[in-house]
Amino acid sequence: MANPSHPYVPRDLSLPGYVPCFLSQSEIVAPYLGCSVFVVAAIWLISGRIGRISKTDRLLMCWWAFTGLTHIILEGYFAFSPEFFKVNTPHYLAEVWKEYSKGDSRYVGRDPGVVTVEGITAVLEGPACLLAVYAIATKKSYSYILQFAVCLGQLYGCLVYFITAYLQGDNFSTNEFYYWAYYIGANCWWVLIPSLIALRAWNRICAACQPDKKKKTK
Amino acid sequence: MANPSHPYVPRDLSLPGYVPCFLSQSEIVAPYLGCSVFVVAAIWLISGRIGRISKTDRLLMCWWAFTGLTHIILEGYFAFSPEFFKVNTPHYLAEVWKEYSKGDSRYVGRDPGVVTVEGITAVLEGPACLLAVYAIATKKSYSYILQFAVCLGQLYGCLVYFITAYLQGDNFSTNEFYYWAYYIGANCWWVLIPSLIALRAWNRICAACQPDKKKKTK
Repeated sequence: MANPSHPYVPRDLSLPGYVPCFLSQSEIVAPYLGCSVFVVAAIWLISGRIGRISKTDRLLMCWWAFTGLTHIILEGYFAFSPEFFKVNTPHYLAEVWKEYSKGDSRYVGRDPGVVTVEGITAVLEGPACLLAVYAIATKKSYSYILQFAVCLGQLYGCLVYFITAYLQGDNFSTNEFYYWAYYIGANCWWVLIPSLIALRAWNRICAACQPDKKKKTK
Repeated sequence: MANPSHPYVPRDLSLPGYVPCFLSQSEIVAPYLGCSVFVVAAIWLISGRIGRISKTDRLLMCWWAFTGLTHIILEGYFAFSPEFFKVNTPHYLAEVWKEYSKGDSRYVGRDPGVVTVEGITAVLEGPACLLAVYAIATKKSYSYILQFAVCLGQLYGCLVYFITAYLQGDNFSTNEFYYWAYYIGANCWWVLIPSLIALRAWNRICAACQPDKKKKTK
């Protein structure tokens, strides 16, 4: 079978059986943003009906629901669909990764580091994010440590993601636009927000551990 | 320059300038074990002179000192010495990685995933381990959350390490002995021990957060 031309960099990347995107960029991005706004709005409204949850915690519930579903559905599809770039129907999830690969061709090229990070994110962190929504809503004692754990996982994943790209030459974007919009723009939120949540959880946990100093000695 | 033969698998791995090990396996392993026993004994004795530290915490201090120094010295050398396999003197740290690469040739082959994980481990986790020794000794309020964070980093690193090898075909060991002794044997402790410490820290943190339920609502 002839290898069709593809839009990805490096240009000599071999993708036998590649089928181009069916959907335009806006047809791919708009449903994702639309669904995300719907999830965030739904969680915000529902959490408002549960008594005694602070606005910060309600915002956190929105974030955890959004990021958890992204991890499970989008990243889960990628991790376990090695041949997504051959899909010859306008399958939405395949289209997402065909499009995103313009910002990082290691996705379409099945880089082992990227597949590993996405697999860990989808299988372990995704469900843990949804558990965090429940833990905040029900004020579980493990709420902060769970949020801290997931944030650390997300941050470690981002570190591996960016450092491996740097070590491999950082030349996986179709052009500057996709580099900044997809590779940097889409990912920077998963550096910024987990950093803030991890810092908050760290402070809360330290405060909770403070009066127990004496108990530690046994 | 001719490519000298090397003992690593896959056999077609290209290592121009490779210089074979000067030291035998026991000459490499014995000093590491000796230094480790010295560090553990020293921390055990010193921590015994600081009052009111439980035996479990003293053992943890020994572990954190041992693993922190391993991360900083051994793994730090590897992460920042891309040409260690060309070193033509019996440089101990270069010898360690020439020998270990018999269990996983991705080290000598400079696999980006392995270099990334080792870099993160050496730069972030190594110093954090030594901070954990201090935090336990001085009963800091961040002691448990710090230990939990480092354990999670070690576990995430191991996951990336083993999953990327699996995705790449899991064929990087010179023979079965090195596979089980180095690749599995040497690494399994960094799965087992961090899992136990993380679980303990999780339980302690949950217990500390339990009475503060009411405070969370603000």
